[in-house]
Amino acid sequence: MNRLELLKKLSQKNKKKMVMLILDGLGGLPDIKTERTELEEAACPNLDSLAKVSICGLSVPIAPGITPGSGPAHLSLFGYDPLKYDIGRGVLSALGIDFPMTRKDVAARINFCTVADDGETILDRRAGRISSSKNRELAKLIEENIKIPGVEIFFRTEKEHRAALVFRGNHLSDKITDTDPQVNNEKLLECHATDGSPEAKHTAELVNKFVPMVRDLLKSYHPANMILARGFAKLPDIETMEEIYKLNCAAIATYPMYRGLAKLVGMEVLSAPKTNEAEFELLEKVFPDYDFFFVHIKHTDSMGEDGNYAAKVKVIEEVDKLLPRLTALDPDVIVITGDHSTPSQLAGHSWHPVPFMLYSKYHRPDHVEQFGERECYRGLLGTFPALNTMTLMMANALKLKKYGA
Amino acid sequence: MNRLELLKKLSQKNKKKMVMLILDGLGGLPDIKTERTELEEAACPNLDSLAKVSICGLSVPIAPGITPGSGPAHLSLFGYDPLKYDIGRGVLSALGIDFPMTRKDVAARINFCTVADDGETILDRRAGRISSSKNRELAKLIEENIKIPGVEIFFRTEKEHRAALVFRGNHLSDKITDTDPQVNNEKLLECHATDGSPEAKHTAELVNKFVPMVRDLLKSYHPANMILARGFAKLPDIETMEEIYKLNCAAIATYPMYRGLAKLVGMEVLSAPKTNEAEFELLEKVFPDYDFFFVHIKHTDSMGEDGNYAAKVKVIEEVDKLLPRLTALDPDVIVITGDHSTPSQLAGHSWHPVPFMLYSKYHRPDHVEQFGERECYRGLLGTFPALNTMTLMMANALKLKKYGA
Repeated sequence: MNRLELLKKLSQKNKKKMVMLILDGLGGLPDIKTERTELEEAACPNLDSLAKVSICGLSVPIAPGITPGSGPAHLSLFGYDPLKYDIGRGVLSALGIDFPMTRKDVAARINFCTVADDGETILDRRAGRISSSKNRELAKLIEENIKIPGVEIFFRTEKEHRAALVFRGNHLSDKITDTDPQVNNEKLLECHATDGSPEAKHTAELVNKFVPMVRDLLKSYHPANMILARGFAKLPDIETMEEIYKLNCAAIATYPMYRGLAKLVGMEVLSAPKTNEAEFELLEKVFPDYDFFFVHIKHTDSMGEDGNYAAKVKVIEEVDKLLPRLTALDPDVIVITGDHSTPSQLAGHSWHPVPFMLYSKYHRPDHVEQFGERECYRGLLGTFPALNTMTLMMANALKLKKYGA
Repeated sequence: MNRLELLKKLSQKNKKKMVMLILDGLGGLPDIKTERTELEEAACPNLDSLAKVSICGLSVPIAPGITPGSGPAHLSLFGYDPLKYDIGRGVLSALGIDFPMTRKDVAARINFCTVADDGETILDRRAGRISSSKNRELAKLIEENIKIPGVEIFFRTEKEHRAALVFRGNHLSDKITDTDPQVNNEKLLECHATDGSPEAKHTAELVNKFVPMVRDLLKSYHPANMILARGFAKLPDIETMEEIYKLNCAAIATYPMYRGLAKLVGMEVLSAPKTNEAEFELLEKVFPDYDFFFVHIKHTDSMGEDGNYAAKVKVIEEVDKLLPRLTALDPDVIVITGDHSTPSQLAGHSWHPVPFMLYSKYHRPDHVEQFGERECYRGLLGTFPALNTMTLMMANALKLKKYGA
């Protein structure tokens, strides 16, 4: 029996409530001056108090040494093996803008780009980062003007130069290659089928028909005079968290991609709050209505990506100040962790295990005094796969029946 | 996606350099008198200093409780699951003498032995450990005089009574049994096919034709008047480290088997230095030319196998004195560990996890003050599979791209 089958078999409903608070990119590396990580440096009395009555550890998002993107890292936290469930870039883009994908859709991540007069050589893969409003204008132009019989075409703005393209039709396949060579000064690529199926051949032909139509349409819209498509993908065949865990799940997240990920696993995505405080406020409001809450804080990661140690420390301190509003709700199980590490020293995601705490009434306490990387290592959970997170939460909420007699 | 596919997909070239220093059989057990293991007892200020700025742990070569041979233990360190890649004894023998094996070859480990007048009963499986020069004389005799149509036969000296036999031809199989019963005073065994394939039947017949020809030829060469063959094996279908990790790898090792293992995974094996010091000298010389260096120290294991606690301590101290020559090269990543434990108390390989340290600029420091079994247990890496070694090295050299978006 595989993991999810087992969980599905054992999970049971009860009234206990669980909160998973994700500080994106939480883990860090010691700063050269302070010799402390961002979390170790941050003054966070509330996180520390909760850590003292929690069970702590370090979680490994995918596998030792592997640096995850946000997609796979969140799948792990939700209990889906990210090496098994591969979510294409196109799907993440479409879900991230609340596009209601169906099983008939193939989605791609689009960049508006600048091409030379030959219409093929890429001068700037990001078209000078055009504004989102310009993007919306062009997206509308494309969606309204380009028609190909037998397929419905959706072309929707993400942000700046980024957009999502969705083909909807019968017999479409995502086994096709990108038109985006991923570097400037090269030519756009033809789209090819990567398997021998007629569906893949058909879909590649559609793309190769669509692209020149866009070229003609955008000719006069320099710098955004062309598009690049990558990560063609269909919805993965994934069971929802409700089906697996029998949970009524809500997602509270400011950023599109995380909302998309939550939707993918069947969570109800609540209207997007703009600030950390608004996220906690929304949690208070809807707390009676769901069993499970995924609350996502984005800026720990953004500040880490910017290489801004002090700013990442500050975001952690802000969240710490908000934490009493969460604990006041008295959830039965609380997990606080990150999806991966984003050390400001590396200005990017990294492979380092992530500080993790789980609060419930039913664990063995450990001797962790502070929520930080080196303290968490002393925790009773040790260094463990992030894929275990939901199982541990479910167990601590007494939502898993005994396996076998 | 499996491990190696993932690593292959994520690995990228950069200029960072890595050194893997293997002290064979490094791990030990506490001596009854000193109550310290060999490594704990050794005065090794340089290893201790490096451990202080490294991340430490204990590595498990194959699986908890499993005592590995050198072949599987090294495969693990190189990132190949030793339970998946089974390397036959014959292949190790052939590679260990720099024999250029091809995919058409079946190799076996040979012992010259002494048989009774009946030509079948084994009196001494090692023929009184004949000299290597006598071995070379007999090997030449066999290779030059025994011809079987349809197959090319190579018979090459390893050392003392040991040799390698290689059959080269079309449709050969390694699914055949040994002629070596592995004990004295028994009769030589017939070779049998172990599967139903015509290839295995054909190869077993070749062996059963070859053996009596050797008997006739060696009749007058007592004590080496016969041979025993075991571990018939073809080259495993294994991707090279260059293919997987995009690394330009060099191996520095005094002993044939380790050179053979390195060659098997596609490393360039450099001309064999005779002493530990010569190995470090060679490392200095070739350091500009490769990305990855496997440096193998044999005598820690040999002394452990001899049950000689004091001598094993001394080898560790010798390597410690040479260590500054390695660190002076300033590699970006250094791993120092063993392939397995060889406690002198057991006078043989054992299952005990192996002291491990990884130095890089990008890890969280732990509180390990000394390179030793019990100190390493306190390290941030904890007790972990040796199979993770290469992934961790690659991550710390920033040679792995992010997985997923």
